[in-house]
Amino acid sequence: VEKMKRLPRLTWRKIWKVGKEDKRRVIHSLKVGVALSLVSLLYLMEPLFNGIGENAIWAVMTVVVVLEFTAGATLYKGLNRGLGTVLAGLLAFLIAHMAKESGNIFHATFIGTAVFLVGAMSTYMRFFPHIKKNYDYGVVIFLLTFNLITVSSYRLDSVLKITHERLYTIAIGCGICLLMTLLVFPIWSGEDLHLSTVAKFDGLAKSIAVCINEYFSDNIQQQEKDAENSMEMEDPIYKGYKTVLDSKSSDENLALYASWEPRYLRHCTRYPWHQYVKLGTVLRHFGYTLVALHGCLQTEIKTPQSVRVLFKDPCNRLAGELTKALKELGDSIRNRRKYCPEMLSNHVHEALQDLIDALKSQPRLFLGTNSNTNILLALATLAAKQKSGKDFVVSLSSVNTDSSDDGPPRLGLSQDFLKEGDKKQNTLRPTLSKIGITSLEFCEALPFAAFASLLIEAVARLDLVIEEVVELGKVAHFKEYSHHDDHE
Amino acid sequence: VEKMKRLPRLTWRKIWKVGKEDKRRVIHSLKVGVALSLVSLLYLMEPLFNGIGENAIWAVMTVVVVLEFTAGATLYKGLNRGLGTVLAGLLAFLIAHMAKESGNIFHATFIGTAVFLVGAMSTYMRFFPHIKKNYDYGVVIFLLTFNLITVSSYRLDSVLKITHERLYTIAIGCGICLLMTLLVFPIWSGEDLHLSTVAKFDGLAKSIAVCINEYFSDNIQQQEKDAENSMEMEDPIYKGYKTVLDSKSSDENLALYASWEPRYLRHCTRYPWHQYVKLGTVLRHFGYTLVALHGCLQTEIKTPQSVRVLFKDPCNRLAGELTKALKELGDSIRNRRKYCPEMLSNHVHEALQDLIDALKSQPRLFLGTNSNTNILLALATLAAKQKSGKDFVVSLSSVNTDSSDDGPPRLGLSQDFLKEGDKKQNTLRPTLSKIGITSLEFCEALPFAAFASLLIEAVARLDLVIEEVVELGKVAHFKEYSHHDDHE
Repeated sequence: VEKMKRLPRLTWRKIWKVGKEDKRRVIHSLKVGVALSLVSLLYLMEPLFNGIGENAIWAVMTVVVVLEFTAGATLYKGLNRGLGTVLAGLLAFLIAHMAKESGNIFHATFIGTAVFLVGAMSTYMRFFPHIKKNYDYGVVIFLLTFNLITVSSYRLDSVLKITHERLYTIAIGCGICLLMTLLVFPIWSGEDLHLSTVAKFDGLAKSIAVCINEYFSDNIQQQEKDAENSMEMEDPIYKGYKTVLDSKSSDENLALYASWEPRYLRHCTRYPWHQYVKLGTVLRHFGYTLVALHGCLQTEIKTPQSVRVLFKDPCNRLAGELTKALKELGDSIRNRRKYCPEMLSNHVHEALQDLIDALKSQPRLFLGTNSNTNILLALATLAAKQKSGKDFVVSLSSVNTDSSDDGPPRLGLSQDFLKEGDKKQNTLRPTLSKIGITSLEFCEALPFAAFASLLIEAVARLDLVIEEVVELGKVAHFKEYSHHDDHE
Repeated sequence: VEKMKRLPRLTWRKIWKVGKEDKRRVIHSLKVGVALSLVSLLYLMEPLFNGIGENAIWAVMTVVVVLEFTAGATLYKGLNRGLGTVLAGLLAFLIAHMAKESGNIFHATFIGTAVFLVGAMSTYMRFFPHIKKNYDYGVVIFLLTFNLITVSSYRLDSVLKITHERLYTIAIGCGICLLMTLLVFPIWSGEDLHLSTVAKFDGLAKSIAVCINEYFSDNIQQQEKDAENSMEMEDPIYKGYKTVLDSKSSDENLALYASWEPRYLRHCTRYPWHQYVKLGTVLRHFGYTLVALHGCLQTEIKTPQSVRVLFKDPCNRLAGELTKALKELGDSIRNRRKYCPEMLSNHVHEALQDLIDALKSQPRLFLGTNSNTNILLALATLAAKQKSGKDFVVSLSSVNTDSSDDGPPRLGLSQDFLKEGDKKQNTLRPTLSKIGITSLEFCEALPFAAFASLLIEAVARLDLVIEEVVELGKVAHFKEYSHHDDHE
């Protein structure tokens, strides 16, 4: 009984929650109600009904089917429905005309064959990726209308009249839908896509911040609790990148709908929604690195306190700069202004350099020159140069030569010594590489090595993200960057 | 002109390609054609038409809208359409009955209000996640039918007759659809989901194999070419895990449709399609590790040849075992038999142990005992124990104590010496940790450290995958594992 009493309250709370999550849902529901009432008037009011007649019911159906949550989706469906109906009407009219003069049985066979052929062909067409993406609904409506008209033409003489009426009422229905969707509290897919992209940057930034924080937090118990949380997929790190990882299909849908929205007229070019999709792909790849970084926290291979303390500051700084960079990128998109890559990447570069210096100052753990790849340094330079793909290869080779000239190995007997070890390198080097005695402390650095290299990879991927953001600013004609904006 | 001539051939090739990719597409297209022709007969044939009348056109519409590619999707739409129509019919009948006795203007107002309220409420209902997922189409049809009947009831007296006829024709349409979809070359969503899951295992296995292969391949030029390829996202590694990463929405759709398919009756329980979705999630997480591993190839931080040669064999073996494990997992799902985790994980465990032994035999690069975490060994034991979540923490601590007892550091003067260095450890240990002289060769190991720890993390994630596969075998009542199957 107690349960029964609570049921209405629980239901009410659930209903309330759905509306609270996104108030536009309530607005949309009311819009549908109003649109349906409006279109019903066509049927209910005497003068209007006399003009349109029985077929007013098609307008009602159109409103139910076409009016979607966002303007883009409504336009997609409305225009597809219109196009499908017109084409089907033309084809059906043609076929009815061809079959008209024949006998009854031939007529029926002819119609049956036409229905079969058109049905099979248009269903097959729906498997073409391009049509599937942009015109799927249109093909369904085409098939629907074609069958409707062709089949009814067998009993009714006035095919032209049916065609005409159906077109007319569907146009009215679509008109009401477009009116409601474009003029009354419009909800834009493009806006959604824009905001969700901005939210992704914020989520990633938050993830990195929490991730670094947890990695360097001293409280082991806290970490274990976090690890448990993360198993339940509820911790803030997971929350931050989750939406990024699963964004593919929703991004693509939003971009598809957005491409039907008329706002691109503003700059006389189509608004480049596909660039948002590309940016989403790059962000997803950035997210994968974050997942791996998160994995470093979860695998229970804890880096010992001693190593962590050594690198806490530079890592924190690098992560801080990464977070800042992501937030600035997000802000620049939010405010639709071009991103100025020179400004920030320097800071990231400096932070990266700091981390590398710290790594270098601990030669027992990480660096040497027997290698032909003074890798961290090389990567740092790469990151600073902000080049993509193929340039990577070129600049790497040049960096390698540089670094083997000016980046010789260091020797440290204790941690205090390490920072002054730079000068002794050349003299000691041959001896040491012959002796090659083990640094027993190295083991401690292994998990950190993985962590650090993932962090550095994150910086490299950030470059790709920056590139796409700059590209987005260019193709979307964002406003120029100005210092004024920055200080607001 | 030349171009114009080639156009038909190109178009034809494109059409051919779509069909060749999946022959069921052709079958489905023909099925739709046949179903439409069949349903048209209701209208075209005199005796049938006399029985059903004008409304036969509804049956045609139903077939166009309901007949989908897979049986599950058709059932989902068909049952939703039926349910929506019945409920809407009942409600509309009730409302028409209530409004019947009133005056014309009141009647119109009443209908308008009802249309508004029902429209707004059912649209709002579509935002509830559970309804959105399972009954979205049903709600649309409910709204459609309700409006249709309520609005027409204003002009027509016989609401009961419209309701009845609409129900009747929709039932016929749905019946034909179900007949076609279930009996004529049925295409099952569940089968698709099953096969796509198996394909994911194969893809991941292939990715790992290629990844290791490339990492240890000597040909630098080859690697650079591969790196370029991977930028264009065309290399086999990317292909292997791509489908896994983007599988979320398609998995969920297939599982949704599959849950409507009647095959679960076989074991008197619902077939656990949600378990496939869960397995997909775990596989996706496995995929993220693979992306990071792939990142190790792409970042251009090449591990020097000398280090790679040292670890080539154990890494190859571990990757080989991983690949084998994934393939066996895929096979066991393909053949719907329970997976026997004891058999394979031992091999993986042995391979992991090999790698760890190799790492241990190179103390200059990796291991020591000054640390409180003999991590690799600890993780290996963990992986072998096949425990999840919380057990990890417990077993780790016990392993740590063990390993610090029996896993002291090793010393090696040259590569040939290393494998025999085991015995010298205890004597040299205190001296070395005091001297703490840098191994200058360490730098070479940093990128490899990242690679190795990712590989080891992959093993840890494989355990989670195995767990879900075992769970799947249990809840889906797969047949027991037998040696006979294995040798086939």
